[in-house]
Amino acid sequence: MSSSFGKNIVVTIFGESHGNSIGVVIDGLPIGEKIDLEKLNEFMSRRAPGKNKYGTKRKERDLPKFIAGVQDGKIVANTICAVIENSDQRSSDYEQFKDTPRPSHADYVAYMKYGKDFDMRGSGSFSGRLTAPLCIAGGIAKQILEKKGIEVQSHINRVGGISDISLDYANPDMESLKECVKKEIPVVSESAEEEIKNLINRMRDEENSVGAEIECFATGLPVGLGEPNYDSFDAVLAKLIFSIPAVRGFSFGSGFDAVSMTGKEHNDEYVLDGGVKTNTNNAGGVVGGITNGMPIVFRTAIKPTASIGLSQRSFSISESVEKDLEIKGRHDPCIGIRILPVIESMCALAILDFMEY
Amino acid sequence: MSSSFGKNIVVTIFGESHGNSIGVVIDGLPIGEKIDLEKLNEFMSRRAPGKNKYGTKRKERDLPKFIAGVQDGKIVANTICAVIENSDQRSSDYEQFKDTPRPSHADYVAYMKYGKDFDMRGSGSFSGRLTAPLCIAGGIAKQILEKKGIEVQSHINRVGGISDISLDYANPDMESLKECVKKEIPVVSESAEEEIKNLINRMRDEENSVGAEIECFATGLPVGLGEPNYDSFDAVLAKLIFSIPAVRGFSFGSGFDAVSMTGKEHNDEYVLDGGVKTNTNNAGGVVGGITNGMPIVFRTAIKPTASIGLSQRSFSISESVEKDLEIKGRHDPCIGIRILPVIESMCALAILDFMEY
Amino acid sequence: MSSSFGKNIVVTIFGESHGNSIGVVIDGLPIGEKIDLEKLNEFMSRRAPGKNKYGTKRKERDLPKFIAGVQDGKIVANTICAVIENSDQRSSDYEQFKDTPRPSHADYVAYMKYGKDFDMRGSGSFSGRLTAPLCIAGGIAKQILEKKGIEVQSHINRVGGISDISLDYANPDMESLKECVKKEIPVVSESAEEEIKNLINRMRDEENSVGAEIECFATGLPVGLGEPNYDSFDAVLAKLIFSIPAVRGFSFGSGFDAVSMTGKEHNDEYVLDGGVKTNTNNAGGVVGGITNGMPIVFRTAIKPTASIGLSQRSFSISESVEKDLEIKGRHDPCIGIRILPVIESMCALAILDFMEY
Amino acid sequence: MSSSFGKNIVVTIFGESHGNSIGVVIDGLPIGEKIDLEKLNEFMSRRAPGKNKYGTKRKERDLPKFIAGVQDGKIVANTICAVIENSDQRSSDYEQFKDTPRPSHADYVAYMKYGKDFDMRGSGSFSGRLTAPLCIAGGIAKQILEKKGIEVQSHINRVGGISDISLDYANPDMESLKECVKKEIPVVSESAEEEIKNLINRMRDEENSVGAEIECFATGLPVGLGEPNYDSFDAVLAKLIFSIPAVRGFSFGSGFDAVSMTGKEHNDEYVLDGGVKTNTNNAGGVVGGITNGMPIVFRTAIKPTASIGLSQRSFSISESVEKDLEIKGRHDPCIGIRILPVIESMCALAILDFMEY
Repeated sequence: MSSSFGKNIVVTIFGESHGNSIGVVIDGLPIGEKIDLEKLNEFMSRRAPGKNKYGTKRKERDLPKFIAGVQDGKIVANTICAVIENSDQRSSDYEQFKDTPRPSHADYVAYMKYGKDFDMRGSGSFSGRLTAPLCIAGGIAKQILEKKGIEVQSHINRVGGISDISLDYANPDMESLKECVKKEIPVVSESAEEEIKNLINRMRDEENSVGAEIECFATGLPVGLGEPNYDSFDAVLAKLIFSIPAVRGFSFGSGFDAVSMTGKEHNDEYVLDGGVKTNTNNAGGVVGGITNGMPIVFRTAIKPTASIGLSQRSFSISESVEKDLEIKGRHDPCIGIRILPVIESMCALAILDFMEY
Repeated sequence: MSSSFGKNIVVTIFGESHGNSIGVVIDGLPIGEKIDLEKLNEFMSRRAPGKNKYGTKRKERDLPKFIAGVQDGKIVANTICAVIENSDQRSSDYEQFKDTPRPSHADYVAYMKYGKDFDMRGSGSFSGRLTAPLCIAGGIAKQILEKKGIEVQSHINRVGGISDISLDYANPDMESLKECVKKEIPVVSESAEEEIKNLINRMRDEENSVGAEIECFATGLPVGLGEPNYDSFDAVLAKLIFSIPAVRGFSFGSGFDAVSMTGKEHNDEYVLDGGVKTNTNNAGGVVGGITNGMPIVFRTAIKPTASIGLSQRSFSISESVEKDLEIKGRHDPCIGIRILPVIESMCALAILDFMEY
Repeated sequence: MSSSFGKNIVVTIFGESHGNSIGVVIDGLPIGEKIDLEKLNEFMSRRAPGKNKYGTKRKERDLPKFIAGVQDGKIVANTICAVIENSDQRSSDYEQFKDTPRPSHADYVAYMKYGKDFDMRGSGSFSGRLTAPLCIAGGIAKQILEKKGIEVQSHINRVGGISDISLDYANPDMESLKECVKKEIPVVSESAEEEIKNLINRMRDEENSVGAEIECFATGLPVGLGEPNYDSFDAVLAKLIFSIPAVRGFSFGSGFDAVSMTGKEHNDEYVLDGGVKTNTNNAGGVVGGITNGMPIVFRTAIKPTASIGLSQRSFSISESVEKDLEIKGRHDPCIGIRILPVIESMCALAILDFMEY
Repeated sequence: MSSSFGKNIVVTIFGESHGNSIGVVIDGLPIGEKIDLEKLNEFMSRRAPGKNKYGTKRKERDLPKFIAGVQDGKIVANTICAVIENSDQRSSDYEQFKDTPRPSHADYVAYMKYGKDFDMRGSGSFSGRLTAPLCIAGGIAKQILEKKGIEVQSHINRVGGISDISLDYANPDMESLKECVKKEIPVVSESAEEEIKNLINRMRDEENSVGAEIECFATGLPVGLGEPNYDSFDAVLAKLIFSIPAVRGFSFGSGFDAVSMTGKEHNDEYVLDGGVKTNTNNAGGVVGGITNGMPIVFRTAIKPTASIGLSQRSFSISESVEKDLEIKGRHDPCIGIRILPVIESMCALAILDFMEY
């Protein structure tokens, strides 16, 4: 089941980077629900490459075409299928990697696991490009949740050593987050945006890349989503987030900061404030695997883009000798800034699935 | 399916903290495989409470009793069932939490989700106690893997601000790790052990607690375990690790350090050294979701034990007023140091499941 | 997942025929629900061997012992575990089949698939004995459904050439069915009972056996259980019924009679009779995979008991020569009459799972 | 997961009868495998409507278009997606059924379960039309199996009271079956073909319909496919077969005939004949849920086409009064004769999945 996830809302992704089409099948969305297609395209465009100079120069028209289950913008059947036709494929870029695997890419393991017939152009089935159809599913899920008062928003929390402002975990400013994703760099702080732009420009000039940390919030959730043990809210979300290419870490609420905290500092004490709340939110909205009604907060570490122009050591599979490799072409100096809608998609889909529509 | 996990080796945990028994059913282990029961008990005892003064004083005889599928220490059927009978239950400790939920415990969400009939004594189905039967499955998995040359070992990497020595991710010293788990605090560094003991003693005296970070390694894996996308090795492991109570973060290889690294620093360049290897191991042994033959490395953040003696703010469910709570009783000042075998169990079970015995 | 089934209510069976214990783990039953243990034991006894002379003479005390999740007859946790301790095991009966596989038993395929370490005494993991813990789960499910006005009852419809009376599929007499299961042969018709007894007595005398057909009904179901396509009500039930040892056929409503019917005869026309009903019920209560509110009706064909005393041709695995085999011991001349509660259990569990408690 | 099935080879169907497209995603097929597209289209055409006068007059160009995972007729990625564009949709035919549900169709239950926004034109997601993409998956599976010496073939065994010749279950004549599917009526017997044609012509003239029984064989299987208990070969296949619209019964080997057989008659005695075989094959090639190397044999009962021109009793949902209904249009008088490739598809996919490619 490596291409599907979800229990009640089942999402199946198909396609490979340089095939004819990529797409998504979604099973179990509520019949009769309307999809705001313009809003969906806007959401998709946050992930799309080529939109400004801080990303890759590749341009892809990532507009979804619904070929099943949607009529006049309304869901009319159990399964939806949307496809994105591939275009702007420069396959020649990838010829050399067949024999000389790119460091920290899947070239070598794919060769070992699937043999030489596996289409690795543009990273094939491993491509970050497959997060585009995922965002179709996620964008629809976000729209359905919004009608129920549930919002999912993220921002870049850190790039290299540059951090955005800290948000209040117990009461995050969702409006600021909604605004910040319209910026070229999705951070709340203007000075951080400037610094990050400079860093990314430098990385591009040096044909290098840099990592990023994304922080995501969800508000308006009911108490009780998730199950004890192996289908806990955080475990299910952990799996979905770690399914996104380039993810190196996932943490909930206090995350790795919890290691150096005491119980007295870390425990979220209860307050009755127009409802049962906690005065802090180190739990990130989930206790014992189940939502407690406080905002969901989690962080994701994204590694630096693996494709860099700088020379790197690799080897020839056919000749079994080490050799150097330079990966020319159009690459994102900081892939992290395009991953926010993917993170939000996974969070929205996890929530919707747990709500057992 | 909240109580089961695995695709080929399916593990099902049952029981609640203060019920008659807790146990595990394991489906799909190889017929004919021998289980070294003494070694298994040794492994179990690493998790067991009451073994030294750095843990809780509760004593539990966590010896597994095989009631199905094992005869004369040999697996003879498709399903194994092992149970641990509960003892030393002081239920009275838990009476007060029915109405006054403990901060950062599942008391409140369980009440909201399951109602008052749900047995929350000792945290019920949410209890860390349920990791005991998990260690039966994990201990058996470790034994099977060892015969294939695959080792899984962990150590405490950090408690509060105190760190153990750094291990070489590309070539970890597994012997040191095997030795360190025999210590009262499972760290390699002797000075770190002393410092951590002092910190934990202080926490106990102050009726407080502290977090911990566990680092786990697995060596000897073949290339090719895991699937692209939603059943990737790291995604599956992320889910299992986040299913363990008290986990706040999970990271693979470089983890959150990747955020401030450049691509040139982060990429693992290939070297041909008696086989295809990488000179660094920021990937933690997994590229594109699939093992590349390098050691598996991941870190887990454990929060400070939620049960502390210090006074905390909570509220009365029945009276809807805030009130203070002191949790007396026998608690681990640093629950992290007992979680190592649980982490190793999850890692071993994930590997064995992917090997599709 | 060969030992588990269900999506919301997950049932996991463990044990082998001649091991220490057999048992069941049930995940997802409603917290707070009471179990009438006496009624459950009564239900279990319908399956138990040795209760009258029309079954095997083996006696098994198949009383379930709840070791987790149940306190004072009430469900208090997410998972329940109940075990039945094995007794009255005459292992010596089975020694010879290790080398000389019994015709139409799993001896040979088990040897080929699992090797010689697999415990085949009493058919091991393949044993009909594993339907006893299944009946614990099914008996509880039946009790929960009854409180919602849903009844599940079955009768022997046919043994050899002897048929019970025909019931009205659109309006079955559930009271007669409830009464008939108290008889030595669970048929409504008294004359059929007599004839079947004679037939079974003859089979026992001849050391032979005979098949049976079971017809099962469920009334009181809501409209809408089941999903289109691969989780349809009938498809899910088909899988569960075919999981029962000795089943050769499963049919819904009109079943194989539909082959020789015309559309005009077969279609169930609508009538408004204090609600939407159909005047016939060839659909067996399910249209397009989804319940329509009419009674569920399905039939199951059970093969003659494979263990017979008459001489049969087999072969020696070690010597690779054909040889004759006589299976002495205590066998049911008509295993079908003990399978009714197993059929009802599967039906009740399928319904409860679809109701997504 | 109502739209997906399979464990290692996961098939996901999407689309509704009168939407833009219907299609299939297949995950897990072997990379590098070639697909004979001409042979696949030939297989598809066996299911397609409008091919001769014994089916509906609707014509659909059911040619699959691969939009992902296949290049130059070779599988190059983990997921394949193929679509069929819908055409020849006469939606007006279906307007009246929105308020007046067709007897023995899913109109009423769909309205109750999904509400009025659900697109029921052409039976929507319940349509037999969705078996077309299933045959794409099944046709590919058949081709892969054939290269391994495994053949899957079926014939019409019975229509109304007319039976085809009996095949030897222990040694079926697969060549005759391969030939017979080229006929207008896929039966081996010429006289049966003539009689069935006459019957179907009569049914068409009377605006009525008739049921059918399909018998399917698979030869060349290894010993050992399937798992004990809930993933047995027959249980998994039972679910898949019962997922096909219009199926009323499924039986394995001797099927319902077993009810009136004795154990001595029914047991398949072993013979050593160039390998371990059985002299009869009442087991249908599966013992204890696991293949024994003998041919797989199973029967499926198909109900008469529910859409008939004859007047039937129904009711108006809006007015809550009974009324008569005549279903004009182009319907198959015997839908069974088009279902053979669907049955073969399910059988081939089940086998391939169990072989854990």
